[in-house]
Amino acid sequence: MSVRIVNVPLRRRSYQIQIGSGLLPRLGRACSDLGLGSRCAIITDSNVRPRLGSVAQRTLAKAGFQSVLITVPAGERAKSLKTVEACYNQLAAHRLERKSFIVALGGGVVGDLSGFVAVSYLRGIAFVQVPTTLLAQVDSSVGGKVGVNLRAGKNLVGAFHQPRLVICDLETLRTLPPREFRAGLAEVIKYGIIYDAALFRRLERDLPKLLRRDQKTLAAVVARCCEIKAEVVGQDETENGMRAILNFGHTIGHALEAVSNYGKYLHGEAISIGQVAAARLSAEVLDLPERDVQRIRVLFQRAGLPTEVKLSHAQRQKLLTAMRLDKKVSVGRIRFVLARRIGQVEFGQNVPMRILEQVLKNTP
Amino acid sequence: MSVRIVNVPLRRRSYQIQIGSGLLPRLGRACSDLGLGSRCAIITDSNVRPRLGSVAQRTLAKAGFQSVLITVPAGERAKSLKTVEACYNQLAAHRLERKSFIVALGGGVVGDLSGFVAVSYLRGIAFVQVPTTLLAQVDSSVGGKVGVNLRAGKNLVGAFHQPRLVICDLETLRTLPPREFRAGLAEVIKYGIIYDAALFRRLERDLPKLLRRDQKTLAAVVARCCEIKAEVVGQDETENGMRAILNFGHTIGHALEAVSNYGKYLHGEAISIGQVAAARLSAEVLDLPERDVQRIRVLFQRAGLPTEVKLSHAQRQKLLTAMRLDKKVSVGRIRFVLARRIGQVEFGQNVPMRILEQVLKNTP
Repeated sequence: MSVRIVNVPLRRRSYQIQIGSGLLPRLGRACSDLGLGSRCAIITDSNVRPRLGSVAQRTLAKAGFQSVLITVPAGERAKSLKTVEACYNQLAAHRLERKSFIVALGGGVVGDLSGFVAVSYLRGIAFVQVPTTLLAQVDSSVGGKVGVNLRAGKNLVGAFHQPRLVICDLETLRTLPPREFRAGLAEVIKYGIIYDAALFRRLERDLPKLLRRDQKTLAAVVARCCEIKAEVVGQDETENGMRAILNFGHTIGHALEAVSNYGKYLHGEAISIGQVAAARLSAEVLDLPERDVQRIRVLFQRAGLPTEVKLSHAQRQKLLTAMRLDKKVSVGRIRFVLARRIGQVEFGQNVPMRILEQVLKNTP
Repeated sequence: MSVRIVNVPLRRRSYQIQIGSGLLPRLGRACSDLGLGSRCAIITDSNVRPRLGSVAQRTLAKAGFQSVLITVPAGERAKSLKTVEACYNQLAAHRLERKSFIVALGGGVVGDLSGFVAVSYLRGIAFVQVPTTLLAQVDSSVGGKVGVNLRAGKNLVGAFHQPRLVICDLETLRTLPPREFRAGLAEVIKYGIIYDAALFRRLERDLPKLLRRDQKTLAAVVARCCEIKAEVVGQDETENGMRAILNFGHTIGHALEAVSNYGKYLHGEAISIGQVAAARLSAEVLDLPERDVQRIRVLFQRAGLPTEVKLSHAQRQKLLTAMRLDKKVSVGRIRFVLARRIGQVEFGQNVPMRILEQVLKNTP
């Protein structure tokens, strides 16, 4: 079995991302290597549990760990303080201690939620990420951003808490519903836009292989995305600067999720719309060539992702209000990540309100 | 006006504790010196707000800060996730940003709660402690432990988040209800037991002056307690070792609070009982002289604090169960801080269950 290893270089908090097919059954041994305590909780959701819950429990038991399986509802709405509290209570009931750890088995919601539970239970216990969606494998499981949503906005509550290990088992993607898989591609395409024009071209070429989940193509692409994320996070762990580039398309995307109460769009779908809008803002503000705006839009479309949204005047105002709650707002100003060309973006960009309204009005 | 300054030495996270009479009206200027953003939230409780809320708002406004006053219910039960959520929602409604900060104006509950809100809102914003109870001034406002309670136990949820500044205005203690003031003395006496026999003797001598809240005596004693805490925290910020000595009497004390559902005892009262019990365990396990057990008990009694509790068999079992949930439990074992003599303690001590049950059965 071939395993690709990507290192996330964060001094005492450095860790490995392991990428390959069939890694989940080796989770137990990997945890042993970390020298963690003997008790753990696997946090998963109601979709993932029937598929992978018992595999995870078995491998941990074989390696000598006592695990308890905690199941949260599937979907973004579970990323709430209410679910966090329910998890805490189960950790307490199962007597998890400071040396105990949490395994996050699932997509981005499970990872973000579990990480927040881990960082705040007993003032912080260890956690291991086992992302089972494409989106979580290439993005949310890496870099230590953890948190939950408030009604007022996405990820408004959270912390930085690096996992001790990330295991991306590409097998788990085989059974992922098509809509979820496509949503993950939105983050994959993002890495091309913000950092790597060659990756973007590869995606233009290999999209059909990716869409049929060819394991070899997936391995290469997932590993490249993780490398990019590791490089960015290694340079700016707590987002004082360039880490912000990872938020390309996210300011509008998050706001869209918030105003639709996290029910209508998957995160990947919302940031697909957000990235296409950001590309159009980029054309206005940073002279991104119109041809690149088109390539970006077309790639998202070919990936089966939404690229536009029709908004009434009232909806547009709600969206703007939600954007002002974005964590990156400073001195009341919304800051955008914009592209100069595919493969190169700049963060902290001001967009005149007139241009922002115009782009939102007239999507695409 | 004389101000005593104690430095908490934590490298990039170092900060000052300012101790003196009449410091609250200078809060605004002190915050200006820190270079914080222009928006802040003052979190306070329903007891403190009428006395000090407008003073705090005025001094902040004078220094150019826009503040919003958030009031939580008074008492330990407010130290809950429910209150945390209510605070988040108000921060979001008032558009607090990453550079914004929180002022915790109140006792230990307000400080711990506000600190947890600060560490987790937008992945962490700055906070300033303005402790208005004796207990908060000498203990909970210093050292960065923040958090809330679960039904299963006290402080089970939390983080380390150092304040940027601590302002102890001794004037605020004048109007403190006598029961609250005495509860604070439980932590003051603790510093004598764990670290400073001379302080313990001074307390034996100056207790009457303290009880009538003589500002000079208070200034000296509060400053000495803060110095001790700063020394301990400076050596072991995240409690990997010796910081545990600060928990003398707390394992039993916390459990007592938990089984009485945080309603019967103030924290200081619970740890008064806990410290006297710990002294008795110390006599059994570390040969603390019986004379010192007596001095300890008598000093707590003179301070007007409870030193014993009558428990039924069932209550005792509940107490033992709650103790096993203590954060310091490792591999299922409860670890105690015990005294060898007044002024010198040792942490990580095992106590045979037989001795523990006997001491709990037969208090005093």
